[in-house]
Amino acid sequence: MRFSNYFLKTSKTTSSDDKSVSAKLLKQGGFIFESVAGRYYFLPIGHRVQQKIIAFIKKEMDAVNYQEMITPVLHPLELWKETNRTNTTGFELMKIKDRRGIEFALGGTAEEMFVDLVRQFKSSYRDLPFRLYQFSPKFRDELRARSGLLRVREFIMKDGYSFHKDEKDFKIEYEKMKKVYFKIFNRLGLKTEIVESDNGYIGGEYCHEFIVESEIGESKYFITKNGNYASHEDVAVFEKEIKNKNEEQKPLTEVQAKRGVTMEDGVNFHNLPLWQQIKDVLFIDNENRFILAIIRGDLDVNETKLLHLIKAVNLRHATDEEIRKKIKSEPGFISPVNIKNELNEQTKLIIVADDSLRTIANAYGGSNKKNIDLINVNIDRDYNPDIEGDIALAKVGYDAKNGMGKLIEKRGIEVGNIFQLGYHYSNLMKGATFVDSDGKEKPFYMGCYGIGIGRTMATIVEKFHDVKGIIWPESVAPFAIYLIGLEIKDDKLRIKKEAEKIYNSLQKNGIEVLYDDREDIRPGEKFADADLIGIPLRVVVSKKTLEQNCVEIKKRDEEKVRLVKLENLLQFLELNLKI
Amino acid sequence: MRFSNYFLKTSKTTSSDDKSVSAKLLKQGGFIFESVAGRYYFLPIGHRVQQKIIAFIKKEMDAVNYQEMITPVLHPLELWKETNRTNTTGFELMKIKDRRGIEFALGGTAEEMFVDLVRQFKSSYRDLPFRLYQFSPKFRDELRARSGLLRVREFIMKDGYSFHKDEKDFKIEYEKMKKVYFKIFNRLGLKTEIVESDNGYIGGEYCHEFIVESEIGESKYFITKNGNYASHEDVAVFEKEIKNKNEEQKPLTEVQAKRGVTMEDGVNFHNLPLWQQIKDVLFIDNENRFILAIIRGDLDVNETKLLHLIKAVNLRHATDEEIRKKIKSEPGFISPVNIKNELNEQTKLIIVADDSLRTIANAYGGSNKKNIDLINVNIDRDYNPDIEGDIALAKVGYDAKNGMGKLIEKRGIEVGNIFQLGYHYSNLMKGATFVDSDGKEKPFYMGCYGIGIGRTMATIVEKFHDVKGIIWPESVAPFAIYLIGLEIKDDKLRIKKEAEKIYNSLQKNGIEVLYDDREDIRPGEKFADADLIGIPLRVVVSKKTLEQNCVEIKKRDEEKVRLVKLENLLQFLELNLKI
Repeated sequence: MRFSNYFLKTSKTTSSDDKSVSAKLLKQGGFIFESVAGRYYFLPIGHRVQQKIIAFIKKEMDAVNYQEMITPVLHPLELWKETNRTNTTGFELMKIKDRRGIEFALGGTAEEMFVDLVRQFKSSYRDLPFRLYQFSPKFRDELRARSGLLRVREFIMKDGYSFHKDEKDFKIEYEKMKKVYFKIFNRLGLKTEIVESDNGYIGGEYCHEFIVESEIGESKYFITKNGNYASHEDVAVFEKEIKNKNEEQKPLTEVQAKRGVTMEDGVNFHNLPLWQQIKDVLFIDNENRFILAIIRGDLDVNETKLLHLIKAVNLRHATDEEIRKKIKSEPGFISPVNIKNELNEQTKLIIVADDSLRTIANAYGGSNKKNIDLINVNIDRDYNPDIEGDIALAKVGYDAKNGMGKLIEKRGIEVGNIFQLGYHYSNLMKGATFVDSDGKEKPFYMGCYGIGIGRTMATIVEKFHDVKGIIWPESVAPFAIYLIGLEIKDDKLRIKKEAEKIYNSLQKNGIEVLYDDREDIRPGEKFADADLIGIPLRVVVSKKTLEQNCVEIKKRDEEKVRLVKLENLLQFLELNLKI
Repeated sequence: MRFSNYFLKTSKTTSSDDKSVSAKLLKQGGFIFESVAGRYYFLPIGHRVQQKIIAFIKKEMDAVNYQEMITPVLHPLELWKETNRTNTTGFELMKIKDRRGIEFALGGTAEEMFVDLVRQFKSSYRDLPFRLYQFSPKFRDELRARSGLLRVREFIMKDGYSFHKDEKDFKIEYEKMKKVYFKIFNRLGLKTEIVESDNGYIGGEYCHEFIVESEIGESKYFITKNGNYASHEDVAVFEKEIKNKNEEQKPLTEVQAKRGVTMEDGVNFHNLPLWQQIKDVLFIDNENRFILAIIRGDLDVNETKLLHLIKAVNLRHATDEEIRKKIKSEPGFISPVNIKNELNEQTKLIIVADDSLRTIANAYGGSNKKNIDLINVNIDRDYNPDIEGDIALAKVGYDAKNGMGKLIEKRGIEVGNIFQLGYHYSNLMKGATFVDSDGKEKPFYMGCYGIGIGRTMATIVEKFHDVKGIIWPESVAPFAIYLIGLEIKDDKLRIKKEAEKIYNSLQKNGIEVLYDDREDIRPGEKFADADLIGIPLRVVVSKKTLEQNCVEIKKRDEEKVRLVKLENLLQFLELNLKI
């Protein structure tokens, strides 16, 4: 490709919105252009990179028997109603009506579309497992788009779906897909960590994110030193040490407590450890239920875990007024003890206790009345949670379970994820069944597997760049060679002639080359563009190099330059490029 | 690919909705599946065909310097407002709002997106011409979807856009693109005719459709025998022969005319030729203007031409009540003579005369009063049209212009189109300019070029099939070979072993093969599926063939079968396949 013919516009300006290096460099390098916030054009050179990433992924997916196809972009909303995802996905789902009034979703994923397809055909156990996937535009109506391609409202996703006869067969697939994903990201130059994560609105029982460690990433996760445990903040578990659990229970007592409303005020007033205090957090969920989350005072509530436990979609904190008027309690003095006694019939309150409350005895805390506390509060005797489980937020330094060591905190970019879906969709969507060997109809056992293409591209830039620009790994570089002719406007020199000869010979030999043939651009600018665009190998033809019948060759990621004789150039490149 | 592993479900049933052969065969052959009316899944084998068509087109577009990129799927509606296409495209444009209230169009084409991109960068005359294109989903909110992939609501389109410094440069491109399109369709096996057509909501001054002749097609067009003229019904012009134009004008006279309201009633009552009568058709346009279209009695009004002449978006016929109350005229007796005299101020009436009225003198027709006609009506003397031009509908047998012969009527499928856009978009969209060699900013001169991928695929099936199924041209066939193993379940026979050997050897040699390894399927069904799916070459391994150490080979489009020795198979295929 000749630069002079190419729709490639580099720029030196940077926008203050570009909080990430990848946003800045991909825009400056002419790879992408923002249409409106979070919606990007992939310009010709950016499209090349995206297509290479897609081709890589396709090859690996095909190799493990995934079959590429494509679904319509508009998903009948009827299907999303079958799985109740019109509600659970909340504001992130975009909907549209056609002129006949039929509603569609602009899908963020396509489970319903694939299940709806598959259930139209009679499948037998002999057909199983089968595996389908697509590369297609996905939509997320994010409140905030940011960091260029790292968080967008529209992007190409590789989404794959596998259908199995049972859990056992699926588990083999899940382990296989872990390996396939590691291989894909490895070949793209990305070192990933596999991390247990929350399934969000996808459903199913467990899932994993593939995360590339990076400060700019939005995924906060914990790992242990030996790497045996890795889990997203949303779902990380830890060992809750036994405190005074076995202490003899003392009588529940009301005491005057003219104190402030914070946990610390309680500690100071009673002169007791923080862990012995009961922390009470009152939420209201999407069904207007009050949720009283209680937990050991030294721990915090993890709202994601809480949501799962109560099977709700979202939560907000109750206001002081709601605490007083609806719950007849007092901010800073909430207590699970007798809190339900004064509720009117319309008010639904669910008490959810973290299992850490089983590690203590004779706890202290509020009494639902201002300036009065309770001491020697004991679970089962003084209050009974409606739901008990793990709703605690993991933090750095906590002990991982099973003696795996302390939790270390990391941040990273989620480039891919894999989900066990189990029977989630096949139970909700009628007819998603196959005929088993015993002649009975059984629901499919499913999994799904996603990779965000644009985000992967941005992550590669986050990992491979320097102050001058991008350093593309060879596997996804838009071109293998950036050929520069210096002073090619000067007809008296034979530079242009030689550069053209090299360009034609590379083209003929199937070597992808971007030829900077611009006549009115100074050498410094050409070198700067070469560094910014980040093509792995730079070949320069100049008056100086031709005096020695050479070209100058430099790798983008090395400082060293070397001269190669014109007649040896092709041979040199063949040795130095994976072609 | 092994059939037993492949998500490929053929079927014998056909839906009564499938009015076209392509819809029926593509569905039965497992290539596509309809999600909801007009929105299709491309199943794995259909996706392969679509990708091959895309690859073909890509190669030809790249070869003439078009650069592939991709725009967002959602187009900011602001841009469509700049070009007024939110109105002109009417009901076919789907719109959607995001959670922040920003409106987007689901585009049917992407002129605005490309112009908006291009105007963000400073372009100089040295950068021109440049050419961009994409393959991307397009949306048309059609009232009726029909005939499978021939008229859908969602499809992949190749849309290309070229930017030029002036008309002269563009015209070279336009002629070049005609050749490129012929080449593309030729290589896909399609014989196309290039036909002048209406630009619909795209804009610009002229455009051409590439049409494949077919009874199922929705495009009606006229050609002359020598092929020098070809034009879509919407825009076809013809020679309007001079009638009694030069006859001496006689005095305008009112006569009693107790007659019916049809043109024929007028002819019979006055005993004068149909062509001497004035035909009056009263429309109301999208701006509530009354449009009186008048034309020589033997001709009909072409509403597309009329729309262009009055620069309106749509038309409907006025009702009898509107004719009487608003226009104070009388159905069946409308006349351009004095029709404006009795209008009230709010009623806007535009008289549009076809130039055929210049070929006659002393015409006759209504008087705007019931049962009274006017005779000896003459243009300019008795009435003055507001607009004059060509609004006549061409018909089979009419004379083409310039003595090119009679018009012959044809029907066909529009598979591609090319448009001169000129300054249409660059004038409407501020800043769509380049700096010319004289230092002045000038608007781009543009063209655009579309191909519907799914429709092209369906058209190939319309042209290449027989009663048994599809006959794919080699260039786009999903696989080169359909390998059948008969009775492979029988372990005593060596059929399975040999079939597997052939399959592996073909795979190893990069020959695309679909291997029908299904064990519980009868030979007859395998042969029927082979014919239905339409892969060019069928290779059968059976007990009978192995007795002669052979396989049986048959081309899909020939009846002849031949035996080829096992050891000669690869050599035979290499000679008979373009690999």
